[in-house]
Amino acid sequence: MKNGMINVALIGHKFMGKAHSHAYRDVGMFFDLDAKPCMKVLCGVGDDLASTAEAYGWERSEPDWAKVVADPEVDLVDICTPDRQHREIALAAARNGKHVFCEKPLALDLAEAREMYQCAQANHVVHMVNFVYRGIPALQLARQLIDEGRIGRIYQFKGLYQQDFALSPDFPFVWRMDKAQAGFGILADKGSHVIDLARYLAGEITQVACATDIFIRSRPLPDGGGMREVSTADAAVFIATFAGGGLGVFELSNTCAGSKNALTLEISGSLGTIRFDLERLNELELYLAEDPEATRGFRKIMVTAPGHPFMGNWWPEGHVLGWEHGFIHQVREMLQAIAQGRPASPSFLDGMRCQAVVEALAAADRDRGWQSVGEAGPGFLD
Amino acid sequence: MKNGMINVALIGHKFMGKAHSHAYRDVGMFFDLDAKPCMKVLCGVGDDLASTAEAYGWERSEPDWAKVVADPEVDLVDICTPDRQHREIALAAARNGKHVFCEKPLALDLAEAREMYQCAQANHVVHMVNFVYRGIPALQLARQLIDEGRIGRIYQFKGLYQQDFALSPDFPFVWRMDKAQAGFGILADKGSHVIDLARYLAGEITQVACATDIFIRSRPLPDGGGMREVSTADAAVFIATFAGGGLGVFELSNTCAGSKNALTLEISGSLGTIRFDLERLNELELYLAEDPEATRGFRKIMVTAPGHPFMGNWWPEGHVLGWEHGFIHQVREMLQAIAQGRPASPSFLDGMRCQAVVEALAAADRDRGWQSVGEAGPGFLD
Amino acid sequence: MKNGMINVALIGHKFMGKAHSHAYRDVGMFFDLDAKPCMKVLCGVGDDLASTAEAYGWERSEPDWAKVVADPEVDLVDICTPDRQHREIALAAARNGKHVFCEKPLALDLAEAREMYQCAQANHVVHMVNFVYRGIPALQLARQLIDEGRIGRIYQFKGLYQQDFALSPDFPFVWRMDKAQAGFGILADKGSHVIDLARYLAGEITQVACATDIFIRSRPLPDGGGMREVSTADAAVFIATFAGGGLGVFELSNTCAGSKNALTLEISGSLGTIRFDLERLNELELYLAEDPEATRGFRKIMVTAPGHPFMGNWWPEGHVLGWEHGFIHQVREMLQAIAQGRPASPSFLDGMRCQAVVEALAAADRDRGWQSVGEAGPGFLD
Amino acid sequence: MKNGMINVALIGHKFMGKAHSHAYRDVGMFFDLDAKPCMKVLCGVGDDLASTAEAYGWERSEPDWAKVVADPEVDLVDICTPDRQHREIALAAARNGKHVFCEKPLALDLAEAREMYQCAQANHVVHMVNFVYRGIPALQLARQLIDEGRIGRIYQFKGLYQQDFALSPDFPFVWRMDKAQAGFGILADKGSHVIDLARYLAGEITQVACATDIFIRSRPLPDGGGMREVSTADAAVFIATFAGGGLGVFELSNTCAGSKNALTLEISGSLGTIRFDLERLNELELYLAEDPEATRGFRKIMVTAPGHPFMGNWWPEGHVLGWEHGFIHQVREMLQAIAQGRPASPSFLDGMRCQAVVEALAAADRDRGWQSVGEAGPGFLD
Repeated sequence: MKNGMINVALIGHKFMGKAHSHAYRDVGMFFDLDAKPCMKVLCGVGDDLASTAEAYGWERSEPDWAKVVADPEVDLVDICTPDRQHREIALAAARNGKHVFCEKPLALDLAEAREMYQCAQANHVVHMVNFVYRGIPALQLARQLIDEGRIGRIYQFKGLYQQDFALSPDFPFVWRMDKAQAGFGILADKGSHVIDLARYLAGEITQVACATDIFIRSRPLPDGGGMREVSTADAAVFIATFAGGGLGVFELSNTCAGSKNALTLEISGSLGTIRFDLERLNELELYLAEDPEATRGFRKIMVTAPGHPFMGNWWPEGHVLGWEHGFIHQVREMLQAIAQGRPASPSFLDGMRCQAVVEALAAADRDRGWQSVGEAGPGFLD
Repeated sequence: MKNGMINVALIGHKFMGKAHSHAYRDVGMFFDLDAKPCMKVLCGVGDDLASTAEAYGWERSEPDWAKVVADPEVDLVDICTPDRQHREIALAAARNGKHVFCEKPLALDLAEAREMYQCAQANHVVHMVNFVYRGIPALQLARQLIDEGRIGRIYQFKGLYQQDFALSPDFPFVWRMDKAQAGFGILADKGSHVIDLARYLAGEITQVACATDIFIRSRPLPDGGGMREVSTADAAVFIATFAGGGLGVFELSNTCAGSKNALTLEISGSLGTIRFDLERLNELELYLAEDPEATRGFRKIMVTAPGHPFMGNWWPEGHVLGWEHGFIHQVREMLQAIAQGRPASPSFLDGMRCQAVVEALAAADRDRGWQSVGEAGPGFLD
Repeated sequence: MKNGMINVALIGHKFMGKAHSHAYRDVGMFFDLDAKPCMKVLCGVGDDLASTAEAYGWERSEPDWAKVVADPEVDLVDICTPDRQHREIALAAARNGKHVFCEKPLALDLAEAREMYQCAQANHVVHMVNFVYRGIPALQLARQLIDEGRIGRIYQFKGLYQQDFALSPDFPFVWRMDKAQAGFGILADKGSHVIDLARYLAGEITQVACATDIFIRSRPLPDGGGMREVSTADAAVFIATFAGGGLGVFELSNTCAGSKNALTLEISGSLGTIRFDLERLNELELYLAEDPEATRGFRKIMVTAPGHPFMGNWWPEGHVLGWEHGFIHQVREMLQAIAQGRPASPSFLDGMRCQAVVEALAAADRDRGWQSVGEAGPGFLD
Repeated sequence: MKNGMINVALIGHKFMGKAHSHAYRDVGMFFDLDAKPCMKVLCGVGDDLASTAEAYGWERSEPDWAKVVADPEVDLVDICTPDRQHREIALAAARNGKHVFCEKPLALDLAEAREMYQCAQANHVVHMVNFVYRGIPALQLARQLIDEGRIGRIYQFKGLYQQDFALSPDFPFVWRMDKAQAGFGILADKGSHVIDLARYLAGEITQVACATDIFIRSRPLPDGGGMREVSTADAAVFIATFAGGGLGVFELSNTCAGSKNALTLEISGSLGTIRFDLERLNELELYLAEDPEATRGFRKIMVTAPGHPFMGNWWPEGHVLGWEHGFIHQVREMLQAIAQGRPASPSFLDGMRCQAVVEALAAADRDRGWQSVGEAGPGFLD
């Protein structure tokens, strides 16, 4: 960080690379930052790298990530690659003293995640895993309300994350359907989002039981070269217990017809209930048992008022935000943490603890039994 | 059955007794029946029995159920007592050649349920268990659509049944909170409704994992005589596999703030998805993947059109029904089955199979492991 | 009224006759009445009269209404005939000292309505017009909240009543499409419901502007005898001012695709807003501006709690009511008023004032100008 | 336009200036443009102009708009000033051969709007008025469906635009509350949005009746210098007829408690109905009467599929957009029109026709009578 600028290198220029690029591009227009991002270099694989870099606003492009993480000019390495590359890049970056912002899931397994966390700590860099939905105003409001005790002690947590992109048997085989490349598949991909939100809102998960299924057993290769057997689950269901008491129930799916990006939560406690639906991310539903009987009911809060999280920096009340805004808020957190010399949140430790739950789920599914989350649960490390 | 009349005796005059009384009172006004019910005798315990019988339209009242089930005039015995009395009354009635209509859950455990089913079969009486929600037009439409293959092969079934009547720690200790009296508690009470609907819509459940919790450990006795420890669960979560493939996820609660009578279902398959919410029981949501991309979305069907199940007998389209109407439709099924000399549906076998799942859930919860549903699953008996 | 019984004669045995019959049949089961109804005689035209009377629970049937209104045994005459017969029957009944319960709209025009009101008053009988939606718990709650000042001074009232039964050009010509028989058509039929609710919730209407349209100009005769020109409107829109200040906006339609029985209201004031939708009649939405910014939003109140209007007499919380229950509540009001020797509400005066608005609307539509409601507005009579 | 770049000058740096700045900043990242915008100069009044220009990404700032519209380097003048300045700036810009993109309402009155339209035409510049909601994918889909005849001939159009920012009597007096500065007040401000959408979706408005009201008669001056009388309406209601037949009903409010940015539309026709709510702008509801009775209902379309308008350029399905995205789509239209040497849409003619309706409304309100829209209606000009 020089002259109040943080030089950013972004590795990965596909879907997530686009979302992160947009966030760096816009964050300074809406938020006062202690240090502004400078979009130095976009790194990726493919002929479209240079043109993409230009379109997204990066100063230059570079196909070799090793050069990027060694570049003295770079302050912050942002990792948007496929999961299997997270570890190697993050370790190299941290060892070079770069701050690291990594997409979720942090790693392929718990061992990798622990190594990444420990390396980042040892090298005293700021580290953050991009559980982007913590950046949604409605979910930050949910956390505030829970912290204030508005819904009391949490009894039940329900987290569903369902899409239907893979519903058609004609949907092609992609790398996420290959267990070797995708690690824990939907448990890691969609599961990590919901697990992180469960941890964020309801605390640590202690035990799990899980079942998964592959509904469409083989799929056409994208190149027309025939069919290939699918080795990762289309859907998963699991139940859980929490460290602070309370029960959890979860459902994940890539083949749930009609669910487009349906991350829905219900958190109920001794005094009230909160509901959220990512397809209507500007709204939060809140029920307060303390309200008088005659006028008691779920309140549909438009989380767009000036006093709501982040909203003072956006548009007038009722002028809704979209999915991409979560990235801006998370990038802001990372940039401010660097500028202020403080840890970022959620950190690699959060990424690691989430990974521990994913791993417990996979074991519970494999063994058809309950599984304890173990060392990464509460009390582990710091 | 004489002169086209079926003489009914109803045992139990509280909540369920009232709902059943109302159904007998109204069914003949809206449906052409092959034999009409004659409301002969109301049986129950308490000083208000005679006045209740009069208010509800019963010819007479009788405190002793043993007399009622032996009364030669009675054709049909309807059992609305606490669960622990179901078995004894049903057995006596069947042995006396009475047709038996019994509230859910059929029995306290699987052994009782089997005995009741076998006794009713052996005595060639019509038997039916009142899973009342099968009588809701929207759920009959759901079954029709599934039978027609509109949502294809079922991949996922979600069933939640949540209320909040017991949320306040001041809510008193009632018999359902005593394990000795309530059997499997919420697993039997709310669980049996959802399990039956899962069986009705998605087929037999084969394996389950389950967790329950008691959030409020002791409650005040209604008579002001201090506190008593609660021994049945406030909430339960479970996951399941189905005989035809597919995953199930379930949540039950008496302490879910804001849920008043929230039985919500989502059944998704290879071609579409169905959603239902008991608090809006006149509606069914349907997503058909076959619809063109541009105009595809969940359809909110008002299940009140003349062609919808039962609705040709009620009011014009859009003139909604209430919760009580399910009872009328189920009573109609029982009366017609008797008049037509055919089995009724859902029968005691359905009640028994449901009980087998409840029992597996209780075992899975106790042992913290997966449990097979066993003999009462598909292929068992009939 | 003898021996605590009120002998009822019901004239009209079609749609409304069925709804009223059901109400008399059920009201005593759910409500403690000071005098119970005795379903004496059903009067109507058609071969099915006797069988209908029996199915609905009437002691006997009688085709000649003149005999019915003169029958010394009859205490209460309930009028469910086509609108054009209301006046003649009501006048005869009142002159014979019968209490009169009349379906809406009270009359074909204001002059008739005034005559009916004055005759009923002069003969000291209890008179009530069945604006049935005042009998919906959610709307009684709305009135309570408004009376308590919870939404402050009313600024805006929106009332829509839309159905789509006449959308298809194949829908046949019925008497309501003939101006000569139907009076003011949709303005009277649907309009009177919405106008009455506007008066009930927001006060007297003072001035109106209105436009109507006939979208389908001719329709097939039901007997297959060709087409007939339609002379009443398919839809109407109007705006209004209120005596207490505030603006109103209204829409009525028989051809609004997808609206099945969509009576929707929004009443907003200086302190809050209320919303209602008849297709979800167990719910009321309430926004209170006084709530803190962070947790402010429309509350979806399930109007099924024990403390909500009428609900202590029905089922447990969350066990929803249907459309027909409004009739039970209105019949109860009429019976109690008779038993207690007090006026019923809404009375023929309400029916007359509603008629004055309907008449002003028709004039405003005809003349394409604003129209004052005139003498039947606030300050008129009593 | 040189070297494939369009040099933009933006006049106005407050709310709308921010939204437009953001659009120019982002449009090139998501859309392939025939010519890219170059953010040359931001013009405005106030000490924060230079810092705002930098934060928003403008090359430089300039307080004098006269210099800006005369600057040879500038290709496109974007007007985000208060309404009363639109005319003068637009005329000067057009006379200097600059393309003009102007916020709505186009002008203070019809005469101004006509002058602006004629001047832009005479100078052969591309002109566009920013009715931003035409840029929302769901509304473009609505238009497509209507053009394809999916809902048939339009019978009814309902358009409401309600907010509650001015609900509190403590909300200060702002320039929009002064008739001298605000022209037709809410009729122009909110009304122009809804009128434009009515024209876009249902065709030209021919006649109107209207009522407005000021609920809070005086408000505190922002500087604490006492109270000032309000001379523009807090709310308005109006009804309308359309050139192609059909009825319209409209409601506008700044004081409708709980409505944050509630622009809701319902367009129903002979074959179906469309509904839209700006607070849930990623959704469109569609009812098709042709669907079979059993499965007919409003479809909640998530307008985020690749084939939906604009959505192929954004995120995967279900990843929702926000309010600001409409500006990006409208800026894209303006830039492409310039690059392609074609007219933009909606043009100043649309702005003028909208103004004609606003003016008719004001006259209808003033005179309490129906008003014809007159020359700006269908058939006028082009």
